[in-house]
Amino acid sequence: MTDFFRGIAPIRHEGPEATSEFAYRHYDPDEMVLGKRMEDHLRFAVAWWHSFAWPGTDPFGGQTFQRPWFGDTLADARMKADVAFELFEILGQPFFCFHDADIRPEGASFAETEANLMAIVDYIGQKMETSRTKLLWGTANLFSHRRFMAGAATNPDPEVFAWSAATVKSCMDATARLGGQNYVLWGGREGYETLLNTDLSREAEQAGRFLSMVVEYKHKIGFKGAILIEPKPQEPSKHQYDYDVATVYGFLKRFGLENEVKVNIEQGHAILAGHSFEHELALAASLGILGSIDMNRNDYQSGWDTDQFPDSVPEIARAYYEILRAGGFTTGGTNFDAKLRRQSLDPEDLVLAHVGAMDVCARALKAAAALLEDGRLEVARAARYAGWDAPENRAMLTSDLDAIHARVIAEGINPEPRSGRQERLENLWNRFV
Amino acid sequence: MTDFFRGIAPIRHEGPEATSEFAYRHYDPDEMVLGKRMEDHLRFAVAWWHSFAWPGTDPFGGQTFQRPWFGDTLADARMKADVAFELFEILGQPFFCFHDADIRPEGASFAETEANLMAIVDYIGQKMETSRTKLLWGTANLFSHRRFMAGAATNPDPEVFAWSAATVKSCMDATARLGGQNYVLWGGREGYETLLNTDLSREAEQAGRFLSMVVEYKHKIGFKGAILIEPKPQEPSKHQYDYDVATVYGFLKRFGLENEVKVNIEQGHAILAGHSFEHELALAASLGILGSIDMNRNDYQSGWDTDQFPDSVPEIARAYYEILRAGGFTTGGTNFDAKLRRQSLDPEDLVLAHVGAMDVCARALKAAAALLEDGRLEVARAARYAGWDAPENRAMLTSDLDAIHARVIAEGINPEPRSGRQERLENLWNRFV
Amino acid sequence: MTDFFRGIAPIRHEGPEATSEFAYRHYDPDEMVLGKRMEDHLRFAVAWWHSFAWPGTDPFGGQTFQRPWFGDTLADARMKADVAFELFEILGQPFFCFHDADIRPEGASFAETEANLMAIVDYIGQKMETSRTKLLWGTANLFSHRRFMAGAATNPDPEVFAWSAATVKSCMDATARLGGQNYVLWGGREGYETLLNTDLSREAEQAGRFLSMVVEYKHKIGFKGAILIEPKPQEPSKHQYDYDVATVYGFLKRFGLENEVKVNIEQGHAILAGHSFEHELALAASLGILGSIDMNRNDYQSGWDTDQFPDSVPEIARAYYEILRAGGFTTGGTNFDAKLRRQSLDPEDLVLAHVGAMDVCARALKAAAALLEDGRLEVARAARYAGWDAPENRAMLTSDLDAIHARVIAEGINPEPRSGRQERLENLWNRFV
Amino acid sequence: MTDFFRGIAPIRHEGPEATSEFAYRHYDPDEMVLGKRMEDHLRFAVAWWHSFAWPGTDPFGGQTFQRPWFGDTLADARMKADVAFELFEILGQPFFCFHDADIRPEGASFAETEANLMAIVDYIGQKMETSRTKLLWGTANLFSHRRFMAGAATNPDPEVFAWSAATVKSCMDATARLGGQNYVLWGGREGYETLLNTDLSREAEQAGRFLSMVVEYKHKIGFKGAILIEPKPQEPSKHQYDYDVATVYGFLKRFGLENEVKVNIEQGHAILAGHSFEHELALAASLGILGSIDMNRNDYQSGWDTDQFPDSVPEIARAYYEILRAGGFTTGGTNFDAKLRRQSLDPEDLVLAHVGAMDVCARALKAAAALLEDGRLEVARAARYAGWDAPENRAMLTSDLDAIHARVIAEGINPEPRSGRQERLENLWNRFV
Repeated sequence: MTDFFRGIAPIRHEGPEATSEFAYRHYDPDEMVLGKRMEDHLRFAVAWWHSFAWPGTDPFGGQTFQRPWFGDTLADARMKADVAFELFEILGQPFFCFHDADIRPEGASFAETEANLMAIVDYIGQKMETSRTKLLWGTANLFSHRRFMAGAATNPDPEVFAWSAATVKSCMDATARLGGQNYVLWGGREGYETLLNTDLSREAEQAGRFLSMVVEYKHKIGFKGAILIEPKPQEPSKHQYDYDVATVYGFLKRFGLENEVKVNIEQGHAILAGHSFEHELALAASLGILGSIDMNRNDYQSGWDTDQFPDSVPEIARAYYEILRAGGFTTGGTNFDAKLRRQSLDPEDLVLAHVGAMDVCARALKAAAALLEDGRLEVARAARYAGWDAPENRAMLTSDLDAIHARVIAEGINPEPRSGRQERLENLWNRFV
Repeated sequence: MTDFFRGIAPIRHEGPEATSEFAYRHYDPDEMVLGKRMEDHLRFAVAWWHSFAWPGTDPFGGQTFQRPWFGDTLADARMKADVAFELFEILGQPFFCFHDADIRPEGASFAETEANLMAIVDYIGQKMETSRTKLLWGTANLFSHRRFMAGAATNPDPEVFAWSAATVKSCMDATARLGGQNYVLWGGREGYETLLNTDLSREAEQAGRFLSMVVEYKHKIGFKGAILIEPKPQEPSKHQYDYDVATVYGFLKRFGLENEVKVNIEQGHAILAGHSFEHELALAASLGILGSIDMNRNDYQSGWDTDQFPDSVPEIARAYYEILRAGGFTTGGTNFDAKLRRQSLDPEDLVLAHVGAMDVCARALKAAAALLEDGRLEVARAARYAGWDAPENRAMLTSDLDAIHARVIAEGINPEPRSGRQERLENLWNRFV
Repeated sequence: MTDFFRGIAPIRHEGPEATSEFAYRHYDPDEMVLGKRMEDHLRFAVAWWHSFAWPGTDPFGGQTFQRPWFGDTLADARMKADVAFELFEILGQPFFCFHDADIRPEGASFAETEANLMAIVDYIGQKMETSRTKLLWGTANLFSHRRFMAGAATNPDPEVFAWSAATVKSCMDATARLGGQNYVLWGGREGYETLLNTDLSREAEQAGRFLSMVVEYKHKIGFKGAILIEPKPQEPSKHQYDYDVATVYGFLKRFGLENEVKVNIEQGHAILAGHSFEHELALAASLGILGSIDMNRNDYQSGWDTDQFPDSVPEIARAYYEILRAGGFTTGGTNFDAKLRRQSLDPEDLVLAHVGAMDVCARALKAAAALLEDGRLEVARAARYAGWDAPENRAMLTSDLDAIHARVIAEGINPEPRSGRQERLENLWNRFV
Repeated sequence: MTDFFRGIAPIRHEGPEATSEFAYRHYDPDEMVLGKRMEDHLRFAVAWWHSFAWPGTDPFGGQTFQRPWFGDTLADARMKADVAFELFEILGQPFFCFHDADIRPEGASFAETEANLMAIVDYIGQKMETSRTKLLWGTANLFSHRRFMAGAATNPDPEVFAWSAATVKSCMDATARLGGQNYVLWGGREGYETLLNTDLSREAEQAGRFLSMVVEYKHKIGFKGAILIEPKPQEPSKHQYDYDVATVYGFLKRFGLENEVKVNIEQGHAILAGHSFEHELALAASLGILGSIDMNRNDYQSGWDTDQFPDSVPEIARAYYEILRAGGFTTGGTNFDAKLRRQSLDPEDLVLAHVGAMDVCARALKAAAALLEDGRLEVARAARYAGWDAPENRAMLTSDLDAIHARVIAEGINPEPRSGRQERLENLWNRFV
């Protein structure tokens, strides 16, 4: 026991009227929602990097957090893992996520770095034997080290491509060894700073081939989890290739991977791409590529990735409504890819940020479920398209312009608009959130 | 002769030192650039709607322009056409573009509206016989009338789908009759105001089928021009389906249309989607779907479509550089989908806005061509990827993660970053613009 | 009776479990909140322009609403007033707001236009005698007509300045006659499209003098209401002078008007200026210029003024919390400067949009009041600054750099950061909203 | 000599046709522009922090630059100074700028830190004796260290206020000792992350008093330079108090400092606040508070501070046009607060980024000067306001609403709009840039 959390006891569900800060008011893992346990709907995960590795820096300021495990040794990495599992014990959430760079010290060579990774993976594996917290997904950090400054898979230097491929192999091995349910790729450096020195076509080919190798390796090692791409439009790069869900879909179609790869959608990245979170979720669902989510909000008015813990029940309810409509998560879950504000220095802040986030998600899930059960919204949506049920209308979809033109003339078609009833549907929403 | 332009004489190339406002300083149609006439590179088009139909309204203000042809009769429409060809005579540009709604009065029924369209098409056709100005593209306005408020192809009401299909048939017929080189679709209402009343999947199917019918009809009538989609992320809708080039590409792939349809890219729409214009051009070129451009700038800081005439040579040069690298236009061209500021009331303003725009485009084209001929930028770009020429590196693209991992270990690969030289390349640019 | 609303009965408070759409679930005018009736806290107003005059146009589309009173005659204007008071009867809200251009037809001259205004003011005045709905504020529309395209008070043409001054006199007279509690100025054209043709200094002098004359006239006629400026950063103009609260404050200070003029803050305008609504409210309160609010939300991701009815309880609660902290409204109130979505064609939409908005505001007010009564947030805020209570610290504010420097050296001051506890405070919030 | 620059010779003006990268094509210090040497117009300064101290980090990536002087010792700091003056020797620019944190190592206490500062100030002072490069301005870094995470002058902790005051005293002393021409304050942490824990009123009082003490100290020590505030809307904070020029002006007026303090305007900060650079310059000039500029561009589409070297002649010309109209710099100058892209690793990149920036500024200055000499733009601007020259119009500014109203009626005033001629003025611009 590290005593980092100074004896904070495991958080329990105590109901909305609980007086303590250290209680779940709404998150009750065993509460049944639409016939499934709440925990099995939400599938919460704690992110290793923000919670245990991020030092509190920003572009204008240095480290604010001073954690006893900050350092470059395996002993530091083990202490970090100890603290992580202590937090998991306190929160009781079912999952965590990691990048290789969060859990192991960098070595002087690829081999040493990989050995460090595997040593820590063993250590984490041992801790998992006595923990209820499992691995939602693993991933490789192919963006922080200076070697990736011009890209990983899309780097002009083939040696970086090689290093990246070897790293992903290690990370997929590590993820598989720890029973991970997904493997994620986020291409923070797969993009460009200036078109002047960039060959878009070449880099797309590299990226397509790289992703195909990842899929091939998944099958080779029998990894049963999903492969997920996490879209983001920019930051750190000026332009990132995995801009948004629609862009990733086009990329997957181009390389024939649309049945092999899904998306991990982050609220903050959706916002930065100019979309609402629910748009990205609904679109991914309609394209059959909805995988998992990062439930961390972005400030709408800060033009960078703020990675804040979620706090708005109405907004989160929109997201879970789309997820529930799509049938809920299979391998995916709700990862808090969220960092404390850099002024939130205390261990209590780390615990309570998660507690608050889990509670607002629980409220939102229940609201979304109630609305879905209520059914009126879906009835209203379907009614709007009901004209298409008429055979002569449905037939137009297999017709041609000439025939439809003739019909318009013959029947004197002259459509009269009908109300979209947006405010009334918003009122209906607000009965539930 | 309407005398709207009060005797302004045709504009001639008079060189950079010309004293008159009414002169081309840089646009010389016959000047050879990279072995081709400047006019044949740029392929300028005047847009009928902004130049002759737009009344100067904005969301907070009414009509500022008081043109003698504003009205709802065929006589008004003919006067508008007269003035248009008088402007073409003054400017001498090779092309124009139109929507059906710009050139004809709305009728009481589809049939009457179509008859009006065809009457005006005949009138325009006669004028074209004695004009050097040809039709770059035609399109249907499926967004202004209230019947389209909830979409055209993607409308929940099948009657609107029918009306839209019939309208596109008319407009394709009109475009073909006038010798148009392209047919464009812009889906300003193909999107949504709120997800609450929208079925994304259904609307995508409708849109896919609609576009397929357009392609089928093109082949049926033997139209030789290109079919083009114009991406735009939002405005008027909250979200539009043809968000950007990458999104359109994914849509085309999904419906198997990627070899049948290209894109018409507008600077302003690129900006609103969070991209640079040159990004959208380079991406479209690399995907093989670059068709044509709308060369009207958006204010970077106004979050709506400002449709201003272009004025920045360095920015425009970036665009033409990508177009030249891609081999230049085939059926496409440079359309000024630009409107006068609503305070620019005088006929002279309409003439001189085009003159200025053509001049900055000419300067930019020449700069881009000179840079391409210079060759240093392309040499620098290629050099950055030169490592991939080595067989052992190229071989990685047909290898697998295991093999590459083994190679990294065996060879102790540890890549060292090299400068991206962005500022030096920007300096090189600035020698030309 | 116009029967426009087809017999919709007055809306009553029926509690959260009401089944009808046509009920207030949360808005109960007589419910006591912090010792005051809810109606007297919220002071709701319906806006004449959006609710009765806006035709549903947007920059890409024409009129969607087809109201029987749309027209240019005094009879139309009277029917519009009839419908307005029918809506007020249904909603039971205490206030309305108007621009001159919303209520009267434009005449052929200033005199005729003013006569029209006064005729309608009489008509409205008569209706008010039997209505419980009073006038929150009046204002002049100095932006829609083409004469204002280059500004009103700041126009380069002194005749427009004259016209504007005369119009404001009429509108102040009309507001006073109807017992208005405030007079508002929104400078939609007081700004510029391009600096190239603009003299900032001159226009600021014109604006300063104009506002001073408004204040002088207020005193001359004994108008007891507040004079309010409504900040907005842009749209319709590229840049508007009344950019945000801080800018307006500087302007007032410059012309010595900071004790005479307050601000009317709109959520949507705050957002467009890059601020949160609560920021603008808190800032205005701290500067002593908080007057009134326009409670209509802007889409965070649409870069233009969307003027939607409010729908997010957590966001609105932030706003009312600042208003309650500042002591609540005096002459001000909550105006819904909101327009139906242009697809919301039905009379029911107009009623229910207001009902939903009033309900979310009521929920938000109660949440904010409960949090304020709870007191923990204010205790936490004060505690953060408690160090300043020590005399030696407070003394620094009347000291000088030398002395403080000496103290730092002498005492070896080396401050240690303390947690800002942001997430914990957000959790506290979420217990109330 | 450190040999960091590997023998790069001083850059000379070689004219537009120079073949070497290492030449000024346009910047010729002695060329006369509007009767003054070009160097004396532009007053270029190199920024110590970006050029010598920034490690190439971004929010997602670590250090990319590996400079031999990176370290925490006085010896490192001296080597950094050596390299800085070697760059100044190569560039020949007249000025540099610094923060305390850029030039000295942090000590264990305030006293030690200050001693380090003064040791390095001595060292720099000695180097300046044989250099032509002088100090444009000094400043204190009150944002990077964790002690400032919640503000400097506006910190809830009075000890941080004390530390900050003492630090500014040291930095003003250092600036004065090195003959600095200005002293700058940028309040990167003077703002908030959340209103929930912030007392706006209190923090404004602290800030007002702090700035007053700075002004008092300036007079006490006889510092002749200007005190400058650098506005920025956000980043690192969610909201910063010195949002933009208008906000700073209001703050200065509030605390009676408008004749004591001016602004240092950065292009990138203007952009982030929603303004054009030229807007902020023109506004500051019209308010009498234009001090100095940071000439580093922000990417218009990246929502964070990109601090790139300038590269667009047309945009820069807009800026210098406003500066020339305002009479040019007095104590101010053109500081390149610009950082290399983090991939630009080579010493040559650092040199050439400055060379390119100085050349585009020189071109822009000459274009702006030529346009000003040409005079047509100013004639057109003045003509637009010429109506105000008529005595009866000018008299309105000292009149009242009643009298103007009477005049409108009596004279039947009915203003007719005139063209704003924006495109024609843009064409005129484009003859010069």
